[in-house]
Amino acid sequence: MRTNILLTLEYDGTAYCGWQAQPSGGSVQQRLEKALSELFQAPVSCIGCSRTDAGVHALNYCVNFVADTRIPIENIPLALLPFLPPDISVKRAEAVPDDFHAQYRARSKTYRYWFYTSPTPSPLLRCRAWHIQRPLQLTAMQEAASFFLGEHDFDAFCAAGGTAKTTRRTILHTELQLLHQRDCFSLYQFEIRGTGFLYNMVRIITGTLAAAGQGKLPPDRIPEILRSGDRTKAGMTAPAHGLYLAQVYY
Amino acid sequence: MRTNILLTLEYDGTAYCGWQAQPSGGSVQQRLEKALSELFQAPVSCIGCSRTDAGVHALNYCVNFVADTRIPIENIPLALLPFLPPDISVKRAEAVPDDFHAQYRARSKTYRYWFYTSPTPSPLLRCRAWHIQRPLQLTAMQEAASFFLGEHDFDAFCAAGGTAKTTRRTILHTELQLLHQRDCFSLYQFEIRGTGFLYNMVRIITGTLAAAGQGKLPPDRIPEILRSGDRTKAGMTAPAHGLYLAQVYY
Repeated sequence: MRTNILLTLEYDGTAYCGWQAQPSGGSVQQRLEKALSELFQAPVSCIGCSRTDAGVHALNYCVNFVADTRIPIENIPLALLPFLPPDISVKRAEAVPDDFHAQYRARSKTYRYWFYTSPTPSPLLRCRAWHIQRPLQLTAMQEAASFFLGEHDFDAFCAAGGTAKTTRRTILHTELQLLHQRDCFSLYQFEIRGTGFLYNMVRIITGTLAAAGQGKLPPDRIPEILRSGDRTKAGMTAPAHGLYLAQVYY
Repeated sequence: MRTNILLTLEYDGTAYCGWQAQPSGGSVQQRLEKALSELFQAPVSCIGCSRTDAGVHALNYCVNFVADTRIPIENIPLALLPFLPPDISVKRAEAVPDDFHAQYRARSKTYRYWFYTSPTPSPLLRCRAWHIQRPLQLTAMQEAASFFLGEHDFDAFCAAGGTAKTTRRTILHTELQLLHQRDCFSLYQFEIRGTGFLYNMVRIITGTLAAAGQGKLPPDRIPEILRSGDRTKAGMTAPAHGLYLAQVYY
């Protein structure tokens, strides 16, 4: 029987050009579709919950596909294991209604960004977190993070090249935490939940928080930057390798 | 002026055959000595605080060497950066007395081991933590860990091929914590501080804790296994990639 199946995946995005299939190959989607096609011995096409950039990771990426399966659905994660490389893993599989669509049905998503300050880079955090050399002010970054809450036009926090019809988005939650501190080393986690995100939006917001933490940008200038719609007034685009798609809510 | 210099390093051991220089190359020591020789434009030999196995990581590995330096010592970490690969980083440099020896002066060391239980492996923890498929009992592992405290003959917890004169060692501290728990995922950290460790000792102790957590070995049998000196009675050798040299005390 043909069933609509929802998978939840974790992946290390370091080796991929992002989620979405590219003619040049090397996407997570292509790698997963290859594994699914091998398992089900038939071509499988997946619908991913969102694009992620090259180097971005996922803790709980959601994907659906339709397949004729004789494997009990809850066994798919283990059955797929031999067909997947070690940087992609399926954590859960469940049957969903026929009209479920991993992208269009997503009501909100949480992204997580890890960055740390330390005079020298941490080998064990490379490809996992953004390294910033000088210390940051936590309270300035926390204050800055709070200004993004609510509905805004995020034109100033969006890279050129996006395909969105509108740049208005609603942010439901932001949280900036100091996860670990020792000697000259501080590890920060920024979490942001919203109804949708524009191209590079989380990375530009994170770059702007870092600018606030470095004292380069007073946090209370953020409302003005939002109103301006001017990308050049926001902070830099934080690198992809600190970003994780953490959760999708349906 | 020739100065005895102590470096503290962090490294990701995945790509190396361990700390110690091997004729075949590919050790952390050889890579560091190459970088130091390039920086000081003279051959440099290092004394490391201990051997680490292939794939083992270090958070604070200690190394000393003697060099004629015109670079201010505190600037060595940043000066070395361009000569080191991204999986090795020097965190601190300090001058030490002429008779300081990173191995012989070490009074104790702390190792940390990370392992997690989850039905499927975590791509983001690969090469960082040992994956165990079935759940573990925390209290049984904590009870087991406590039996290693004090002075014992660790012959049963030592791989063949070591060069130690005696197999008696003193364990000063053990701690087993559940660091993170969510759904079917649990991440554990085991820390052990001792005056010295035999070949594979921390990995065999960790394998034995896991056996206790799986209910395969009652924790209170550990004193008997210690007394027996019989390696076959202890647990398996946990894989190298979950192990970190965390701290060296002088």
